[in-house]
Amino acid sequence: MSQPDAAADPLDGAVIDARLHALAAFTDVPGQMTRLSLSPSHKAAAGQVADWFRAAGLEGVHLDGTGSVVGRYAADRADAPTLILGSHIDTVRNAGIYDGNLGVLVALAAVEALNRSGRRLPVAVEVVAFADEEGVRFLSTLSSSRALAGTFDPACLDEPDASGITRRAALEAFGAPVEAISGLARDPARTLGYVEVHIEQGPVLEECGAPLGIVTGIAGASRARVVVRGQAGHSGTLPMVLRQDALTAAAEMVLAVEARGGRDVAPESLVATVGLLEVPGSAVNVVPGEVRFSLDVRASDDGVRKAAVTDISDAITAIAARRGVAAEIVWGHDAPATPCDPDLRARLEAAAATLGLDAPSLASGAGHDAMVFRGIMPMAMLFVRSRNGSHNPREAAEAADIGLAARTLHAFLLGLGA
Amino acid sequence: MSQPDAAADPLDGAVIDARLHALAAFTDVPGQMTRLSLSPSHKAAAGQVADWFRAAGLEGVHLDGTGSVVGRYAADRADAPTLILGSHIDTVRNAGIYDGNLGVLVALAAVEALNRSGRRLPVAVEVVAFADEEGVRFLSTLSSSRALAGTFDPACLDEPDASGITRRAALEAFGAPVEAISGLARDPARTLGYVEVHIEQGPVLEECGAPLGIVTGIAGASRARVVVRGQAGHSGTLPMVLRQDALTAAAEMVLAVEARGGRDVAPESLVATVGLLEVPGSAVNVVPGEVRFSLDVRASDDGVRKAAVTDISDAITAIAARRGVAAEIVWGHDAPATPCDPDLRARLEAAAATLGLDAPSLASGAGHDAMVFRGIMPMAMLFVRSRNGSHNPREAAEAADIGLAARTLHAFLLGLGA
Repeated sequence: MSQPDAAADPLDGAVIDARLHALAAFTDVPGQMTRLSLSPSHKAAAGQVADWFRAAGLEGVHLDGTGSVVGRYAADRADAPTLILGSHIDTVRNAGIYDGNLGVLVALAAVEALNRSGRRLPVAVEVVAFADEEGVRFLSTLSSSRALAGTFDPACLDEPDASGITRRAALEAFGAPVEAISGLARDPARTLGYVEVHIEQGPVLEECGAPLGIVTGIAGASRARVVVRGQAGHSGTLPMVLRQDALTAAAEMVLAVEARGGRDVAPESLVATVGLLEVPGSAVNVVPGEVRFSLDVRASDDGVRKAAVTDISDAITAIAARRGVAAEIVWGHDAPATPCDPDLRARLEAAAATLGLDAPSLASGAGHDAMVFRGIMPMAMLFVRSRNGSHNPREAAEAADIGLAARTLHAFLLGLGA
Repeated sequence: MSQPDAAADPLDGAVIDARLHALAAFTDVPGQMTRLSLSPSHKAAAGQVADWFRAAGLEGVHLDGTGSVVGRYAADRADAPTLILGSHIDTVRNAGIYDGNLGVLVALAAVEALNRSGRRLPVAVEVVAFADEEGVRFLSTLSSSRALAGTFDPACLDEPDASGITRRAALEAFGAPVEAISGLARDPARTLGYVEVHIEQGPVLEECGAPLGIVTGIAGASRARVVVRGQAGHSGTLPMVLRQDALTAAAEMVLAVEARGGRDVAPESLVATVGLLEVPGSAVNVVPGEVRFSLDVRASDDGVRKAAVTDISDAITAIAARRGVAAEIVWGHDAPATPCDPDLRARLEAAAATLGLDAPSLASGAGHDAMVFRGIMPMAMLFVRSRNGSHNPREAAEAADIGLAARTLHAFLLGLGA
């Protein structure tokens, strides 16, 4: 299915879903969906996407210096501003087929429908399939969307992957014109904004029975590594009252994190998670002397997040002091919340309403390419109901919901010309 | 220092401590104390111990079929019963130099002192350096003491180590007459009992400022593996109220284990420990879907232990049900408590009193060769104050305390002739 069926409606969810399955054939690991950034399967997928872009009527289709596939649907007039539609086609290891790819193919479908009907808008539409969103292969991530935002960091070109291949060498093997990266920054004064369609990756839309949701903003995130040091001992010979058990202390901390995360509710959407927890050198008959765990705190309101970070740090310190163990907390990654543009949100909401849909508002707890445009140009996101989270082979979106997303984005584009 | 100094007092703690350090030269891994059962360094250590046994006046010194070094100090009469003194000379990986070895060298010193003074007792004294106590190399353990108890299981000869070498092959390479194992069982009717000196491996004696302690019994132990299964999810997109977090559930279980273990105090010496805890497939941004942990419950009273096991199982089941996760508990290893013989205990206590020592009674939370004699012959243990637990390079006993243990054991032996 390298060429679209000329008879089929490009906004038909089944047509988009069939393309998603066809694109899933491009994988580094046969039998699963693994398409790491700038890998050979990514290169082949980018070629397929470029073919679809051209067949849909996009012009100037090319690979940019960061490996993104870019195409343009011209406006009805000269000097019109540009709207960017995009998402990414790289994946995590053993991924699902919807994360990222769905947003690219829905954007493609909306523009393809415009082209079929011969409709031009007072804005040009750029469709972009970003190359670097998942951050699995190299240390940093979002380099391809940052290039458009004008915040690309050239130092990331020297980052090696696990095999020692630098991002620069990977880009050159990919066929990307690395030397052109510095010219990729879009002029915010001539750009209407960035809009991304993406699966929700969470259960909120499923829980409230809505196929689509309007994103209020992308949550800010704080991450930390905590090391708890007690005193190891023999599980049979060390009386309970003399223990400085690092694991029971950590258990109390994990529960404190959960309790603080659950105290505030929507719309700030605070979440607090201990995802990693390790007991180095552990054995069934050893009282744990050391535990290491991670913290991940997110909220769509930075004040709510920072208050939770402070409270969690205080709780961990207090638990450690009471139990006579040491706790070292190192807060690292700290990303501010990125609010979506109110006007673009309202336009997406109105577009959904033309289909009779009452699309609820919800925050994005996950990061997306969209967040790099914070403070640079307006940004909005449309979420599609999905099952089983994301980053696993069971992630899923219904073809009918995908079709509603495409029709909503199409109506949104038409609304720009109204 | 392959031969003892004829001028030195064998009961001098510094002399015994010097031998402990000399014996520590026999290690599989230079720079640390690693002497796995039946390894080349164990063979060399056994040779050194045999030399010391002979020089101390023990007769018939030999390697038995399980790799133990055995020597005998004859009684003052024919048909006298035998008392067995022993401990082990195998170690864990990266061990200390006192665990096991100290008990062998203290027993040797006590008999050496008898021999120096030309004193014979109305009982023969056998000194044994067991070959297989730590259970690091092969699946089962305590095979060398079980041979004396008459409970050696020939099936253990076919157990392979990690390199595929069977215990039988290792014994043959060690020079042990495997074919003679079935004849090693001692006749309980002609054996007074078994007495073992060992470092405490815990902080109780240190806490109460006593150099020696009389063991009341070896705790019984129950072990289990617990698997908690919730639902994995994205740490940013899964709201707190919709989570089935396996790690927060496990944290609550860990605290329940700690609380139940701490409820009862001495003399039952209940302890309950989660030593291993793993979060398979974990990541900083993933709500944990599965956690595996171990349980280790010990008490010197079997009723106390079994009540705790029941309560802990019930608590884990209740926490899982309340949190909507699944918990599977599989209780495996179950060893009954082994009480020490009251008469031997009283004799050890009286022997310590001859040195002006008030040796407190305490339970052994760790297992020892002594426990294989449960129900077969009387058994008692003398603990020596130690620091930093055991099974690590920092475990330590003071030379002065070692000397007190040797003098107490010597006085105990003299008491048998009184």
